[in-house]
Amino acid sequence: MPRPRAKTFIFPTPLDASNAFYEAFEARDIEAMMSVWAEDEEIVCVHPGGLRLVGYSAVRAGWSELFSGDVRSRLRLHLSEAVLVQTISMAVQSVTEHVVLENETESRGSVETTNIFMHTPAGWRMLAHHASPSREPSPAPSIPPARLH
Amino acid sequence: MPRPRAKTFIFPTPLDASNAFYEAFEARDIEAMMSVWAEDEEIVCVHPGGLRLVGYSAVRAGWSELFSGDVRSRLRLHLSEAVLVQTISMAVQSVTEHVVLENETESRGSVETTNIFMHTPAGWRMLAHHASPSREPSPAPSIPPARLH
Repeated sequence: MPRPRAKTFIFPTPLDASNAFYEAFEARDIEAMMSVWAEDEEIVCVHPGGLRLVGYSAVRAGWSELFSGDVRSRLRLHLSEAVLVQTISMAVQSVTEHVVLENETESRGSVETTNIFMHTPAGWRMLAHHASPSREPSPAPSIPPARLH
Repeated sequence: MPRPRAKTFIFPTPLDASNAFYEAFEARDIEAMMSVWAEDEEIVCVHPGGLRLVGYSAVRAGWSELFSGDVRSRLRLHLSEAVLVQTISMAVQSVTEHVVLENETESRGSVETTNIFMHTPAGWRMLAHHASPSREPSPAPSIPPARLH
């Protein structure tokens, strides 16, 4: 059975790929989400509940399930405390995600996240995403921080 | 105040650095642990409880605190489900750690871990370590798996 293929986008920098990742997450758009990931059997996604998924098909299925859940209120992720280390072939972004419900200003909790991007012939793609709950929920900034670039 | 400096070791591959990391962890040896890390203000360590530490001093203090705690039984970490992606300048290791107490065979729980290594003039060093509890504890293999190489 042919594997469902994501739309083709080219992300010229790791932060372009990161921004696309968060936009796809907030929009709950599975095609846009998977356009960010490398089409590779070694991609890894660890969700905040501790579920670890390895390989394109499993990672896609995980996001599909997440996005198909009942939605009473859209989620927004405000990012803070970002660290980015980039080499010619790979980049690591460490960031705290503050989960905010649409039409609210207070954070419902925060998540520590490590995003790893790899330079491929098709631009920068996500190789791994590891997200886990922060030790303590932190309030969202009263003014949402600007995106990372 | 001069920063305490780790002993100098050269790790010729990412897996050498990874093995040294786990040996230092099991031995609760702060100097050996810090010899694995890059001496950089952008290193990041997320512990399973959700504490995120950024920078050499904070990462060192975190491990020092962990290693100085009361110890009734030594911990062993058995690794499984390892994925390694390596480029010329950076490497990502995703692995499940099964926590086993010395003199026991059953796992007390498991942790999903992302380790990131960077190639430096002093060999491969750890740039980031992100560990968080697995969704469900998995039993340790009855025969501990061999180290990763």
